[in-house]
This record gives sequence, structure tokens and C-alpha cells, in this order.
Amino acid sequence: MHVDVNCDMGESFGLYKMGDDEGMMPHITQANIACGFHGSDPNHMRSTVELARKNNVKIGAHFSLPDLAGFGRREMKIDREEMANIILYQIGALKGFLDASGVALSHLKPHGALYGMAARMEHIAHAVADAAEVYGVPVLGLAGTQQEMVYKERGIPFLAEFFADLEYDDNGSLIITRTHGEVEPGYAASRVLDAVRNGHVKSVNGKSLIVRAETVCVHSDTPNAVDIAKAVRKAINQLETA
Amino acid sequence: MHVDVNCDMGESFGLYKMGDDEGMMPHITQANIACGFHGSDPNHMRSTVELARKNNVKIGAHFSLPDLAGFGRREMKIDREEMANIILYQIGALKGFLDASGVALSHLKPHGALYGMAARMEHIAHAVADAAEVYGVPVLGLAGTQQEMVYKERGIPFLAEFFADLEYDDNGSLIITRTHGEVEPGYAASRVLDAVRNGHVKSVNGKSLIVRAETVCVHSDTPNAVDIAKAVRKAINQLETA
Amino acid sequence: MHVDVNCDMGESFGLYKMGDDEGMMPHITQANIACGFHGSDPNHMRSTVELARKNNVKIGAHFSLPDLAGFGRREMKIDREEMANIILYQIGALKGFLDASGVALSHLKPHGALYGMAARMEHIAHAVADAAEVYGVPVLGLAGTQQEMVYKERGIPFLAEFFADLEYDDNGSLIITRTHGEVEPGYAASRVLDAVRNGHVKSVNGKSLIVRAETVCVHSDTPNAVDIAKAVRKAINQLETA
Amino acid sequence: MHVDVNCDMGESFGLYKMGDDEGMMPHITQANIACGFHGSDPNHMRSTVELARKNNVKIGAHFSLPDLAGFGRREMKIDREEMANIILYQIGALKGFLDASGVALSHLKPHGALYGMAARMEHIAHAVADAAEVYGVPVLGLAGTQQEMVYKERGIPFLAEFFADLEYDDNGSLIITRTHGEVEPGYAASRVLDAVRNGHVKSVNGKSLIVRAETVCVHSDTPNAVDIAKAVRKAINQLETA
Repeated sequence: MHVDVNCDMGESFGLYKMGDDEGMMPHITQANIACGFHGSDPNHMRSTVELARKNNVKIGAHFSLPDLAGFGRREMKIDREEMANIILYQIGALKGFLDASGVALSHLKPHGALYGMAARMEHIAHAVADAAEVYGVPVLGLAGTQQEMVYKERGIPFLAEFFADLEYDDNGSLIITRTHGEVEPGYAASRVLDAVRNGHVKSVNGKSLIVRAETVCVHSDTPNAVDIAKAVRKAINQLETA
Repeated sequence: MHVDVNCDMGESFGLYKMGDDEGMMPHITQANIACGFHGSDPNHMRSTVELARKNNVKIGAHFSLPDLAGFGRREMKIDREEMANIILYQIGALKGFLDASGVALSHLKPHGALYGMAARMEHIAHAVADAAEVYGVPVLGLAGTQQEMVYKERGIPFLAEFFADLEYDDNGSLIITRTHGEVEPGYAASRVLDAVRNGHVKSVNGKSLIVRAETVCVHSDTPNAVDIAKAVRKAINQLETA
Repeated sequence: MHVDVNCDMGESFGLYKMGDDEGMMPHITQANIACGFHGSDPNHMRSTVELARKNNVKIGAHFSLPDLAGFGRREMKIDREEMANIILYQIGALKGFLDASGVALSHLKPHGALYGMAARMEHIAHAVADAAEVYGVPVLGLAGTQQEMVYKERGIPFLAEFFADLEYDDNGSLIITRTHGEVEPGYAASRVLDAVRNGHVKSVNGKSLIVRAETVCVHSDTPNAVDIAKAVRKAINQLETA
Repeated sequence: MHVDVNCDMGESFGLYKMGDDEGMMPHITQANIACGFHGSDPNHMRSTVELARKNNVKIGAHFSLPDLAGFGRREMKIDREEMANIILYQIGALKGFLDASGVALSHLKPHGALYGMAARMEHIAHAVADAAEVYGVPVLGLAGTQQEMVYKERGIPFLAEFFADLEYDDNGSLIITRTHGEVEPGYAASRVLDAVRNGHVKSVNGKSLIVRAETVCVHSDTPNAVDIAKAVRKAINQLETA
């Protein structure tokens, strides 16, 4: 059994800083690098690809709706074909830097509002699949969603993602807040172990939920992000070597 | 001897239309496709790549300074590393659509203000070369410039470009106007023949200039663009089969 | 009785041209000038304000969702406060040019997807009203919508708009197509007369609909836009002087 | 004698944070608010205007080249008329929020690369003056520059600015670094006193320079920005009440 630890990376923009990428990179196995549509720019994409390469971290494209001012968190009405083209553009742009660094594309992960739309809307799930098909790499997403069904049908590989530092509501949806609050590292690690071993997590109200965790997401902008990442990674390492 | 006919393509943006791409494509051999920084968008890049593929036209990346509002015609102060990253981003983005269509990248051509900067400024020529090195394809540009020297030193392939529908001043510089005026097709064709066979063109004041023409550029937004392209292509075809 | 003829104006962007503003301006009474978020830029806003001023045409702000690539036609999820701020920014920007030309702001009109959202969604109607309250000028919109109710409650002046060159479906909604097709000028004029005099229009399927026409919209990008504008204006003039 | 303390404000963008505006506002007299072209957005402009209003701080427009990715620090070639239009757009946009808050526009200050261009290039100084003329408020800038000469000729009011937290080179030019380092508050205050009382500052190499200080700039992103602002304001207050 192998479980990845993934983190959204390279979201700084120009002089604006977002997340502690240098602190996080040694503790993760998959870097989801922003492609300039919700965060990042060519300079930050280049340096983040290099940072991941030096840390032997796999690199995926973290693409978004075209919404820099809203950090990709404002839903937009967009049809399948346009959405697929917007995604292809971003994956390609990241591949420019992968080609320059001689590294392969490892995976794909929609960002923000698009992550939720791909989970709920069939035509958006298909748009992601249209782009994924070109590259033949797995897409990260929530298990049991529209997205997973569409991928299964079309033979697109899928990695079920569990969120170490976000709470789930009673329906299994993520509770996303504008800024991420501190999370006790030991608590995050124990939730991850429960999710990986038992396919189980407690909702914010204490309800038992079924989850699947083939890769675990930690965020880089939680106040104690590096400590959470270390604790989660350590827990997973012990599990894998057990 | 083979001489290409190239044209800047895919510069429409959203609902805004630029150039008669469908009319021009059958008459050229190289399409320089805009990458979204001075014109184009994911939808137009996708459809232009498909249009070129169907016409068996080679596809190159036509990258620019980041200046959509100025159509890439306003010079910016930018250092080598940032410029190279901006170029890699755009080439990569175009490659996303080439990968989707199963077509190879054929060549590179800087757009607008960047075309002139690469010709005059060593650090910009190097930035283009930094990106070109990743892909190993030739760059189009004016012969005898800073750019050609830098490429020669670094072993980057180069294609000397002649402009069928623009006048040259007495120093061999192109006279670029905001909008392109009509050009008599026979006149354009005879200039191309003179340039290809004799390496010669007359400046706007009648001065004899030495030029090199390994690829001939025709513009898609000249009022009679398609007629110019047809005449130029016909002249080159006769030369090649002679 | 006075009925205005309004037209969306200044939607060209950089080198990209949209609509025949110079041809239309002599035939309208209200110019709705784009504010840079779906079309236009500072140069086009300045020159369009001047063009309207010279033709004694009243000037309104034609603001949009932030969506240049989609020409403001892609709906976005956005809350009331952010929407109001986005609108205030655009009205203010247009006022910069009105101040420079010494002309007053006459009216407001949401563009594209925002026009429909303001008609259907209470929080968006309130956002428009929040901005309109600052300037005390009327907002143009469809009669009988959410928008009109919100404005009435809050004391925001409202002008009911009738579309001379668009068809209505059986529910009274506009049928909006990506590009506007040709409309017979006499037919447009007769529909306008019916709407102004009788508050009546026939839907695309022949159903009788109740409408209100305090201002009549003609588009500048219909193939025969100037002829439609002339015919509509002439019909309204005859009505007013009758 | 009155000397203002000014600070660039409202430069956060979406989720990206820049500078400690809340900490600085109580200690300054002039807020230069970004207008969305190098930083800020409608939400941050609105809240920063409100923050300044509550602290009785005068509000000026801090406009820029159109360069969000470069934070307005990359020079662009741009002609006078286009530059003036770009400035008018931004001042107007800020005025939208001033109108909403019932506050008057107090002053103007070019940002970043534009600040230096206005000081050196006559056509850019004229572009700033073209916009300033519409509003009749003073422009902040370095004394003895191209800018001051152009304003004097045209009757545009001018406020000579001294930088409390930046070093000057031997030619009197500011030494601008990508990020601002810590400055000892007492040292900053003593430099300000020397500049205000004696029109004198020592260059980074110890050379005596003549300066003029009608308003003193402190930056909000220096690590100890609030302490510098407090010390500078206290020194100026003592001077004014002496």
C-alpha cells in the first residue's frame, strides 16, 4: 500500500506571497503546481518546479477557472469544450517548465471552485477528462463523486483524495473557509490514519462518514502547515513500513 | 532550395475577430499561432491548431510580451530570466493543444515588440534562445541581427525571414504601421522573388538592401491578404520547381 | 411622452474592433459605454465619450462581470458586496472620462450575463442598486423583473427597456445569440411602435406579450445596425411629435 | 509649516496580502490608495477608503502602469495620450469609492516605474499633468525633476516628497530594492528632521544632498513599518508645534 501526501504549491503571484512552499516541499510526495489562472506566474512556476525536482517530489498541474482576482474560488458558467481548452492551456504551460527541467507530468488536480464543479457537474467532469486523456495521468478528486464515475467510464485513472486539515460536513462535503485555521498536528495525523486504514472519518458534528484516501492533501497556508505535514507524513510512513 | 511562407495566426480573442485565418491557411506552409499573451485564447488556439493540421501546415509558437491590451506592441523592461519563463509558459500552453491534436511543434517566432527587442537586445535574444533550447526547433527572425549572432553562438537553428507585405527603410528596418494597407499582389510576389533569388530588396526610398529569405511572412490582416498570399506562394512554388 | 434610443458603445478593445460606433451615434439618444471589464479600454472609453459628447448623446455606464475573455457573457457566482464594489469601480472609471470631457453621467446599464442576473437574482439587483444610489441616476432593465421590484422599494429610478432587434421567447425572455443576425429595419420599427404605443410585442412563436418601452435598445454589431437605428429613431420621432 | 506623512495603501489583491494598512493608518496623514493596475481590487479599494475615512486620513490616487504581474515595476513604452487615459481611468475608479464614502480626492501619486518615468520623461510628466488638471489636486513627486518643471509651467500643484525609509544614491536617486529591509526608527526620524528643517540628507555614501520635504513617505511593508511611521510622525508633530 502506498499513500501520497499532496500539497497545492507555487500559488505566489509576482511580489505577493502565498504559502510556505520551501518549508512544505520536504514533507510531501506530490506537488500540485498552480498554472497562472488562480495564482502563480511564469517565474513562480519555474522556481516551484525546480524546488519539487530537487526534493524528488512528483509534479502535477493544479489548474483553475480563469479568475486571478478571486483565486479561482468563484464559480463560472462555462461549457465543456471551453473548459477543456482552458485546462489544456494550463497543463501545457506547466509542461513548458517540466520540459525545461526534464521532469515528467505526474498527475492533475482541479483547483478551488473547479474542484467542486468537477465533483458535481457531469459536463465539467468530462472537460477534465478530455484534457486528462491527452496526458494519461491520474486526476485527484473526492471519491464517490460525479467525477469518479465519469473517469471510470472513460478509463481515466483516479486518485481518491482525503483532506487532513479540513473538516467534513454530515454529507461528506468539505467545509472550506476563506483562510485556513490552525489544526493540531496529532489530530490531523490520527484522522489520516483512520481514513487510510478504516476508510472512515468523523464529520464536524461527529457523524461517521465513509471516505477513501489514496492521497492525502495538506495545505501550505495553514498557520502551522509544516508541522501538520510532518505529522501526517510520519503517520503514513509508519503505516507503509508496518 | 525550400522557402516557407509563414503567417501569424489565431490572434482573435473571445468575440473579437482578427485576420482571415480560414482564407489564409491553404496558401501558407508555417502558421505562427498566438499564445494568449498578445492575442488568442484557449478556444482560438485549439481551433487554429486544428485548422493548420487539416491544411498540413507546420505550427509554430508566436509568443509575446504579456500585453493583451497593447497587442504586444508596447516594449517593456524585462530581464532575461523572467522573459525566458514568460516564453516557456506560452510555448508550453500551445503544446497543450499540439499534444491534443497529435502534432509536433515546428518553430518559434517572437511577436511584435518582442520581435524587435530580440533583434536588438542581447539579453532578450538569449531569453528566446533559453526557451528555444528546450525544444530544439528553429526561431524565425531578421538576418544579421543580434538575435542571429546569439543563436549561432549557442547552436540554435535560425530561419531568416523576409516580409512580403511590409516596406523596409534605408537601414533595413521594417516600417510597421498600426494597420496594414493594401499591397499589390504582383508587386509583393516580385519582391519575394528578388529576395529569394538575389538576396536583394529595394528600400522605401529606392536604396538597394541585402536581405535573406528562408521563410516569407505574409500578414492575415492586410485588406487583400489572401490574394497576396496566393501570389507569393505561387511565385515560390515556381521557383522551387524550376 | 419621451422614448430614448440606447446603444451599447465603446466595446472595441486595443486593436480589436467591435460595432460601428461612429455610424450609430447620430441616431441614438443614450450611449451605454463599456467600462473595461467586458470590453473597451481607457483609449476607447475616452474617444467614445468624446464621440457621444459631440453628438449630444447622453452617456451611461455599461458595467459588467470581470470577464474580458468571455465578453461578460459567462455567469459568475459573486456576492452582493463584491458585486457592488466591482460596479462602483467601473462607473467611477467611466466618470474619469466624463469629468475630463465635462459631461454628466446620465444612466446605468448592466451588461451581458450581469443584465440577466440583475433581473433574476435579488442580491445582484441590490448590488446594482447599492452602486446606483451613489449616483442617483436611472438604471435600464427589463420591466417586471426582480430588478424593478428592488429598485422600486429602494427608490432607485428605473427605465424599462425594449429590444428592437432581438426576439422574445414565450416567457418574455430575450433570445440572445452569439452574433446578431440581420433584422429588417421596417419590422424593427413596427415592433417598437407596437411596444411603445400598446405595450405589446409578439414572441418568436407568435404569442402576445406585455412589454414596457421607456427606452429602446438597438445593437451596433447587427450587420445592418445603422439602418435599424435610423428606422427605429424615425418611428419614435414621429410618435413623439404626433 | 505643515508636513504630511504619506503611505502607499490598499495594495493587497484578492487573497494576497500586502502591507500592514490597519497598523499604519493611525500614524499617517495621506493615504495613497492603489487603483487596481499594480495592486488592489474593488474590495480592497472600498475597505481602504473606509479605513482612511475613519482615521481622518486624506486620500489620494496611487495609479500605475497596467502591470499587475510586475507590481507596476516594469517600465513600458507608452505615449502621452494613452498614459493620460490609463491614469484617468484609475483616478476615476478610486473616485467611485470616494463618492460612495462621501470623501474628496486629496492628491495624486504615480506608482513604481511610473513614478520614475514621470520624474525623467517629459511626455510622461505631461500625461500625469493632463489627468491632474481634471481634478485640480496636487501631485506628489521628487523635487527638481522633469515632473516638477512640467507642473510649474502648467500650474499643476506639486508636493515634494522625501522618503524616510529609503536610501539615496550620490545623484539623489532613490535606491529601490525588491523588498524593503528594516530601518531603525530613530534614524529614520532624524533623517526626516534634517530633510524638513535643513533641506538636507546624506547619501548612502555619506555625500550631502539637497532635498525638499513637503510630505514624507513611509512604506507599509518594511518589517518594522509601524514603528518607523510612529517615530517619523512624532518628530514631525514636535516640529510643527515647536
